[in-house]
Amino acid sequence: MTEYKIALVGFGGVNRGLAQLIVERNAAWQTELGFSLKIVGVSDLFLGSICDPTGLDAAHLVALPPVKGAFAQLAGGSAEAFNETVIKHSRADIIAEATFTNPVDGEPAATFCRWALEAGKHVVTTNKGPIALHGPELSQLAKANGVSFEYEGAVMSGTPVLRLARQSLSGAGVRGFEGILNGTSNYVLTRMEEGLSFAEAVAKAQELGYAEADPTADVEGHDVRLKVVILANELLNARLQVGDVTCSGISSISTADIGQVRASGARWKLIGSAHREGDGSVRASVEACLLPSSHPLVGISGATNAVSFNTELLGAVTVSGPGAGRIETAFALLSDIIAIHAANH
Amino acid sequence: MTEYKIALVGFGGVNRGLAQLIVERNAAWQTELGFSLKIVGVSDLFLGSICDPTGLDAAHLVALPPVKGAFAQLAGGSAEAFNETVIKHSRADIIAEATFTNPVDGEPAATFCRWALEAGKHVVTTNKGPIALHGPELSQLAKANGVSFEYEGAVMSGTPVLRLARQSLSGAGVRGFEGILNGTSNYVLTRMEEGLSFAEAVAKAQELGYAEADPTADVEGHDVRLKVVILANELLNARLQVGDVTCSGISSISTADIGQVRASGARWKLIGSAHREGDGSVRASVEACLLPSSHPLVGISGATNAVSFNTELLGAVTVSGPGAGRIETAFALLSDIIAIHAANH
Repeated sequence: MTEYKIALVGFGGVNRGLAQLIVERNAAWQTELGFSLKIVGVSDLFLGSICDPTGLDAAHLVALPPVKGAFAQLAGGSAEAFNETVIKHSRADIIAEATFTNPVDGEPAATFCRWALEAGKHVVTTNKGPIALHGPELSQLAKANGVSFEYEGAVMSGTPVLRLARQSLSGAGVRGFEGILNGTSNYVLTRMEEGLSFAEAVAKAQELGYAEADPTADVEGHDVRLKVVILANELLNARLQVGDVTCSGISSISTADIGQVRASGARWKLIGSAHREGDGSVRASVEACLLPSSHPLVGISGATNAVSFNTELLGAVTVSGPGAGRIETAFALLSDIIAIHAANH
Repeated sequence: MTEYKIALVGFGGVNRGLAQLIVERNAAWQTELGFSLKIVGVSDLFLGSICDPTGLDAAHLVALPPVKGAFAQLAGGSAEAFNETVIKHSRADIIAEATFTNPVDGEPAATFCRWALEAGKHVVTTNKGPIALHGPELSQLAKANGVSFEYEGAVMSGTPVLRLARQSLSGAGVRGFEGILNGTSNYVLTRMEEGLSFAEAVAKAQELGYAEADPTADVEGHDVRLKVVILANELLNARLQVGDVTCSGISSISTADIGQVRASGARWKLIGSAHREGDGSVRASVEACLLPSSHPLVGISGATNAVSFNTELLGAVTVSGPGAGRIETAFALLSDIIAIHAANH
C-alpha cells in the first residue's frame, strides 16, 4: 500500500476541500485508487502554518475556524506562514499549491512551485497564475528534477479537460479549441437572455457568490485569457504569452443584442479560442461571439464550462462540466495525484 | 523505435480506414506516438485473406476494389478467408477485429477474439457484439494471457467515452450515466422537430446512409441497449446482460408530441441510461425521454452522440462527438493501440 505524504500550501476553499475528501475517503482510496494520503504540513498566509512528519489530523484541520492565525490553536502550530519550511522541510512527497491567482507575475505561487520542484517534490496546483505565466519553465524544472508538475484544475476545475486532450485525444490531431471558460460571464449572459440588463445580471451573480465585488477579471475576459494561454501551450505547443491573446469581454453586449437573436436559436457567448494557422503559428483570442444554434457550445448555460476541441480525425469533440466549486476543484488535485501515482507504478 | 505487427480481421470501412491512416501517417506516428504499425495479415469473409510476416503494403490494400475474393489479386493472397491462420499464425502482436456486429451471440467475432487472446495477442475491436455479450469473459481471458483487450470504439466510435470515464474520472465516483448513443434515431428526432413525420425522417436518414434498409435496430433501441450494457459493466461494474436492460424506441413518438413541447425548449431524445441504486444494484434502460431545456444532453442534435456522467464529486460531466464514421471509428482502434503502447512502456 502506497501512502503519499502531502503538504498543503494555501488553506482556502480548495485545499480545505482536499482535506475534507481525505477525512471522508482516505480508507476507500486505498482500495479504489491504490494509495492513501497523509497531510504532513499546511501553510496559509492568513491562518499560519503547521508541520508534523508523522501526520496531521485532517479532521482537525477542516474544523479549524477561518480566523487569522488559527493554526496557532493547534499543538506545534504557528500564526506565521512558514511557507518555505513547509514546502522544503515537511518531508512531503507532494506539494498541493492552491494559493490565490496573481495574474501579473504569478507570485508568490510560482516561487512556491520552484522551491518544491527544486527540492525534488511533485507539485499539483489549481492556480492559473504560475502556469499561464511560467508554465514551460516550471514543467522543464520538474523534468530536470525527475518529478511531476500537474495542473488539471487550472483550466476547468475538476472537469478533466487537459487530461482528456492529452491522453484520450492523443493521435486525433488537435488543431484548435473553443471554450466557455468563465462561469460568471456565462451566467451573466444567460440571465440577460431572460431580460435582465448587464448591471442587473452582474448584481445577481454577485448575490450568488459567482462574481467578485470587482467583476472586471470575469466579464472583461482576463480570467479566460489565462486559461487560453494554458490550453494553447499545452495542446498546441504554442509558447504563447498572455499579451499574445487578443482580449475583449461581454460588457459591450446589450440585452437588446441578445434578444434580437434569441428566436433563431443563436446565442452570444464569451469564447476563448486558439487555432493553428496554415503557417504553423497559433492564433488565440477571447471575445464575445454569436454562436449559431448548431454550434456544440450553444447549449452551455449558466455556470457550466465547456471546451470543444477541433480535431483532424474526429471533428469536434466537446467536454462540459463544472468550472468552479470547492470540492470540484479539490478533485482536480486528487486527479493530479492519481496521475502521479499511475506514472510511478 | 517500436513497431507493432498488426493483423486486420474484417476489411470493411473501419479496418480499411485504419489501413488508410497507416498509409498517410505511419511516419508521423513514429515521432508523435513513439511507434509505427506494420500490417502482417488481413482476412475478410467477402474479400478473402492474405498474410506476410515481412509486411503488406497498406496502400495496395486500401486500393483493392471491394469485390468478392479480391485478395486473390495480390501475390500470396487467397479468395478464401483463413481467419484462424491470420489470427493465430500471422505473427501479429495485435489483432484489430472489426467484423459485423451480431447482436444475438456476438459470433464469429467473439471466437476471433478468443483465438487471438489465447494465442497471447492483444485485441483491439470496435465490435459491440462480443463486448456486450462476452465482455467480462474476454477481459478475463486477456488478463490470464497477459495481454490487453481494448474496445473504445464499441460505444461511441472514436469519441473517447470509455477512456474518459476510466482514466480521467477515476476517483470522481461515477454513479450513473445518460447517453444519446444512436446517431440515426437522434437524426430522425431532429428532422421530426422540423415537421417531418417519423416515416419521412427515417426515409431521409436512409437516403443519407445513416439508416439501414431495416432501421429497426436503430429506432427501436436495440443498438443503444448493447452500448448501455458495455458502459454499465465497464463503469459501474454491473455485470448486466442484454436482457436486463428494459428497452423501447422512438417509433411511438409523433411529430405532434414533438411540436407540442418545442417552444418550451424541451426535447424528446432516445436515452440509454444506467444508475446505481441505493442497494448497490444497477438499473438500466433505453427509452424516449422528454428532456428539460436545462438538461446537458438537450442540445445534442443530428448524428452527434453524447454521454453525461453523473458523478459524486463533479456532478454532471458530459462528452460529445461523433458516434459513427469510417475514419472516426478507425481512430478508436488507433487510440486502443496507443493505450496498449502506454501500458507496455
